[in-house]
Amino acid sequence: MSLVVEQISKKYQDKAVLADVTVSFEPQKIYGLLGRNGAGKSTLLNIINNRSFASAGQVLLDGKPLTENEKELNQIYLMSEDNLFPGSMKVKDIFKISAGLYGTFDWEFSTELVAAFELDTNLKFRKLSTGYRSIAKLITALCVPCDYIFLDEPVLGLDANYRDLFYGYLVEAYEKRPRTFIVSTHLIEEITNLFEEVIIIDHGKIVLTDTVENILRESNMISGPREQVESFAEHLNVVGKEELGGLVNVYVSGELHQAIPENITVAPVNLQTYFIQLTKGKKGI
Amino acid sequence: MSLVVEQISKKYQDKAVLADVTVSFEPQKIYGLLGRNGAGKSTLLNIINNRSFASAGQVLLDGKPLTENEKELNQIYLMSEDNLFPGSMKVKDIFKISAGLYGTFDWEFSTELVAAFELDTNLKFRKLSTGYRSIAKLITALCVPCDYIFLDEPVLGLDANYRDLFYGYLVEAYEKRPRTFIVSTHLIEEITNLFEEVIIIDHGKIVLTDTVENILRESNMISGPREQVESFAEHLNVVGKEELGGLVNVYVSGELHQAIPENITVAPVNLQTYFIQLTKGKKGI
Repeated sequence: MSLVVEQISKKYQDKAVLADVTVSFEPQKIYGLLGRNGAGKSTLLNIINNRSFASAGQVLLDGKPLTENEKELNQIYLMSEDNLFPGSMKVKDIFKISAGLYGTFDWEFSTELVAAFELDTNLKFRKLSTGYRSIAKLITALCVPCDYIFLDEPVLGLDANYRDLFYGYLVEAYEKRPRTFIVSTHLIEEITNLFEEVIIIDHGKIVLTDTVENILRESNMISGPREQVESFAEHLNVVGKEELGGLVNVYVSGELHQAIPENITVAPVNLQTYFIQLTKGKKGI
Repeated sequence: MSLVVEQISKKYQDKAVLADVTVSFEPQKIYGLLGRNGAGKSTLLNIINNRSFASAGQVLLDGKPLTENEKELNQIYLMSEDNLFPGSMKVKDIFKISAGLYGTFDWEFSTELVAAFELDTNLKFRKLSTGYRSIAKLITALCVPCDYIFLDEPVLGLDANYRDLFYGYLVEAYEKRPRTFIVSTHLIEEITNLFEEVIIIDHGKIVLTDTVENILRESNMISGPREQVESFAEHLNVVGKEELGGLVNVYVSGELHQAIPENITVAPVNLQTYFIQLTKGKKGI
């Protein structure tokens, strides 16, 4: 079973929000779906989950279009910034309704999570702070039986302790029952080591899909006097540049086949820095 | 002019949310107000801004209680997770109404900020994503003429580029017209160097107020075999502890007067780590 997004485009009032997006999600992998504010991430997630319609293209689960198949759609769960349940509903009732909608619910795990995050499930959803809304949503997402779980900003508003706790529980959930998680977040550094693959979306287009291992191995920052750095980087794939007086930092991807001249330093780059450099340009397709 | 919170307590249904909170904010300083999810931060901010009432205690601006003084209250602005304007209102109209409510508005600066963050001010507030809602709110907060600006989670949902942009503009706003900013955030590390003082709230109580300089100078992690570390830390103020087999990390605050024995390493601690250690216990006053 695999989930394939095929040539999806989306326009709002003649403005292209997504342009020809093709990406596939394999079973039992943890993906990072990264993009800047306004890059089109949430639109893509809403289309995959049938909450919004594509202007063109289709989403296939096991080769079958999702729009024609309610049963297949039940295999996909989206935790998003939208609240699908009325604000007056108590958290414990959200769990119950989710159990009904998706067939089962991991009540044992949810009890453990509720205790760990000190969530009061008798509270109405709208009485919760931003952080606790995220907690209620992420517990639901980790306990439904679906095979594809999309987590859009799961740690929004969470303190550092609770973010760490969530990362631990995500790994635990995955190990107990391997399934596909697709995590979209702006706090890249602290979750990088959980991702197997990364998909970067920018200006409504997929600009990179690769394993974290490959990205980290092939990303470097080259620093030194402008002329020497530019000459060294001439045949490399330059993704970003910073100037500081006569010195420059150039961010590159790809193998360095040449010997490194004196005056020039080469340093590895973490995923967050690589992402920032790759996507720091202005918006608009 | 100074803003003093005097012995504020707050109960919800017999549960103490704030207990005897006393803290003062001096003119023209940038404060960090740090606390875990559920620590009582938002309740405190709402009381200071007259959006919620204290069970006991008072808030004084220049010695006068704020509850009796609408004019003084106008000197205080709170950017919070609550949306005070109808979702159907366009962003540009939120700016206009804020200008009317607070007397003036820095239109030149807001134009610069709108361009930098690529915010479409013709959009209705509810059409904005979480990140762009934060952007619309923080632009308003940086452009009203108030002397005390509370920013509750200003970077909620912002990507890393935009978070950096905001930190830069906060400094610029402060330098152009020094005023008091009180910033509440869960992303402590990336903003530490902007804070002059830090206030830490935990379980509804103020547990620390100090300058960042003092906290960083006096905070250390002591690592090594359990017995030696415990004996070394005996007369120090221990704020947290981690065990890893026979080895322990003990986090302490205060000056180290003794010589450091062999086997033991002492390393400085950053503000986020210090905060995590100080507040990692269970909730409940």
